[in-house]
Amino acid sequence: MPRVVVDVMLKPEILDPQGQAVANALPRLGVNDVSSVRIGRRVEIEFSGEPDLDRAREIADKLLANPVIEDFSIRLVEADDTEGARS
Amino acid sequence: MPRVVVDVMLKPEILDPQGQAVANALPRLGVNDVSSVRIGRRVEIEFSGEPDLDRAREIADKLLANPVIEDFSIRLVEADDTEGARS
Repeated sequence: MPRVVVDVMLKPEILDPQGQAVANALPRLGVNDVSSVRIGRRVEIEFSGEPDLDRAREIADKLLANPVIEDFSIRLVEADDTEGARS
Repeated sequence: MPRVVVDVMLKPEILDPQGQAVANALPRLGVNDVSSVRIGRRVEIEFSGEPDLDRAREIADKLLANPVIEDFSIRLVEADDTEGARS
């Protein structure tokens, strides 16, 4: 069953101290070629029936994101699709 | 310039109280067809030069994820690709 994934990120103009802290720690790990780190939330919503993007948008709007400082995007992801190399 | 996106999620067998709290709040919004909500982190890493997936994996392993309780996956995303309908 596909899942709905909601990505919630701070708007680009909002400072991200958590991401900044990671970026500042990287030179100590010997990493000098990273220009920016931004940290947000990834929310996976599973529906008992058909995934409902409109319903997910309503949930994100009311419960998951603060529209004053955050943007969110919504998409369908197959349940077995890790979208990348799983560690 | 493409970005590297690292998704960090709790392992499936680890309880997610934050996601559970959202799931428990949904019936009060009139949403009754959601079976599960899991909340993790989405980290966007921008490199000053070419994106380096191996380097990003090293960063995720050392700094972004706790391998005892979390899995992460890494992928390249085009900078202008919102991967879904941006709100």
